[in-house]
Amino acid sequence: MGGDYGPKVVVPAALDALQNYPQLEIILVGDQQAMARQLQDLPAPPASRLHLQPTSQTVAMDESPSSALRGKKDSSMRVAVNLVKQQQAHACVSAGNTGALMAMAKFVLKTLPGIDRPAIIYPMPTDTGQAQFGCIRMLDLGANVDCNEDHLFQFSVMGSVLAKALDQKATPRIGLLNIGSEAIKGSEVVKRTALKLTHTSALNYIGFIEGTDIFQNKADVVVCDGFVGNVALKSSEGVANMLLNCMKREFTKNWRTKMIALLARPVLKGLHQKFDPTRYNGATLIGLNGIVIKSHGNATTKSFYKAITEAINEAEQNIPALIRSEVALYLGDPKVP
Amino acid sequence: MGGDYGPKVVVPAALDALQNYPQLEIILVGDQQAMARQLQDLPAPPASRLHLQPTSQTVAMDESPSSALRGKKDSSMRVAVNLVKQQQAHACVSAGNTGALMAMAKFVLKTLPGIDRPAIIYPMPTDTGQAQFGCIRMLDLGANVDCNEDHLFQFSVMGSVLAKALDQKATPRIGLLNIGSEAIKGSEVVKRTALKLTHTSALNYIGFIEGTDIFQNKADVVVCDGFVGNVALKSSEGVANMLLNCMKREFTKNWRTKMIALLARPVLKGLHQKFDPTRYNGATLIGLNGIVIKSHGNATTKSFYKAITEAINEAEQNIPALIRSEVALYLGDPKVP
Repeated sequence: MGGDYGPKVVVPAALDALQNYPQLEIILVGDQQAMARQLQDLPAPPASRLHLQPTSQTVAMDESPSSALRGKKDSSMRVAVNLVKQQQAHACVSAGNTGALMAMAKFVLKTLPGIDRPAIIYPMPTDTGQAQFGCIRMLDLGANVDCNEDHLFQFSVMGSVLAKALDQKATPRIGLLNIGSEAIKGSEVVKRTALKLTHTSALNYIGFIEGTDIFQNKADVVVCDGFVGNVALKSSEGVANMLLNCMKREFTKNWRTKMIALLARPVLKGLHQKFDPTRYNGATLIGLNGIVIKSHGNATTKSFYKAITEAINEAEQNIPALIRSEVALYLGDPKVP
Repeated sequence: MGGDYGPKVVVPAALDALQNYPQLEIILVGDQQAMARQLQDLPAPPASRLHLQPTSQTVAMDESPSSALRGKKDSSMRVAVNLVKQQQAHACVSAGNTGALMAMAKFVLKTLPGIDRPAIIYPMPTDTGQAQFGCIRMLDLGANVDCNEDHLFQFSVMGSVLAKALDQKATPRIGLLNIGSEAIKGSEVVKRTALKLTHTSALNYIGFIEGTDIFQNKADVVVCDGFVGNVALKSSEGVANMLLNCMKREFTKNWRTKMIALLARPVLKGLHQKFDPTRYNGATLIGLNGIVIKSHGNATTKSFYKAITEAINEAEQNIPALIRSEVALYLGDPKVP
């Protein structure tokens, strides 16, 4: 029920996923009438693999997490998270209020042993110099502020697990986001985290990386405090939007530039496809006893579909179990300060 | 002597500035032979307004600030800062090692009364929807990590002074960078800073802004911790470079796309001009008893010239004196917690 478009986007994306993944089952959770309205306009789904779970409440996009947690026990979001807890679903996907989703997921699913705080991890495009962009994972992107070195260390372990399992990277390079590459640079927390990571031979820690490096494929996992990560993500989005809007304005300025845009269309289309945000949808609330994927609130059908595939991939790899065993390894390591 | 190109860029930029500003005097500080070599290939400068101050040392770009401070007392950087201290220069402009420049400037010039830490403030482009980009100022961009609410409050006052004096903004809108716009969002320091700013009626504090807002002209001054600001600046640069490089690759893929690029040249040139980093060069080390401007290390002649004009503007307005009196106002304000 969440996000800017609710069932209008979620229902068709679910049907697309059912069609492309013959083993997949989906439980649509939400207002029964709203879901039925969407379904009646679409080709009949495979009835045995699509289930409806009616709920009576919805969480507003601007609702406070605590109010949603207390008062919205029959919301689509809460019931979907409950289904994961009850092992009736392998994963939950939502385009709703991020804070509320995180609060509910934490409350219902609890964090994995050894993990103090769940984080938000997201695949970011990187320039590999090739025709296609690469993909790295960055965390935390806003679930936690004022992180200490234990949190950042735990983020590193979780990021490494995800990059290994989902991005086919045998020994993911872990970079710690900082404001310079020299050891003397950075905040106290970052320096203490570096010390911990340096002593962890099982993680492929490559040292400090800077903001510019995020998009240059220098690390497979970028680790940072949620405040820093959120600002980095949003300023990057901001500047990319500014550039693309400006390009649009330049190309539509007058009939001459419009003609040129027409000619340049295949090139511009190629560019657009590469920067298409639908290619990167699906943030993971990582560190929980279950899989919860957060879609962009303004996701289209195509990009909500992308978030569903992220959930499928994580369920197939059983990411929470992988993190559980990886964390147990490091917690027992006497070398880590 | 600093930056990627040293006198090769600094000397011609200085001559350009002397030509365009008939009142301007410049003291070139550095290796005498290197400066002379550059001067001999250029049209004769107005001798009465160009002075050479020979020095015997240079600060390396990767030298530690403490080593430069201790061991490089006859470096171009140190002598240039000394000239400001001795009131023989109104401002110092350097493309050298930022950390060393900050350390020397702090040591020699000292901070202004009421200012605990100098900050780095920089003009950033913002999208106003018009043909030309707007300009906002953001601080701190990396001089200080682990800032507290007093530091961020002082940054707000200094940013406001600069925006008022240099950008012709009568009551500059101060935005506090955060990860959401609701009061409950953010780190403890950010929340406490908001409380201070809310109680300061003389500052036009508009509340929290997010990373995306930086480039959307929502505030005239963006205030943040140096760690956060540095990461925001560098990730924005990173994503802009990725986009522009990708565009270049798309347009040079084959003879067809190259033909299109040729036709689209006026449009692409317009775009390039708008994103031309030379338009935004010249960061201020603000909060000192004197004017010190830091140019990008990779500045070209054109962009180093831009940094010189920033120094001229700040000297004409006597920014340090303005900050001194503005800070005195706020320090005496009993309403500020």
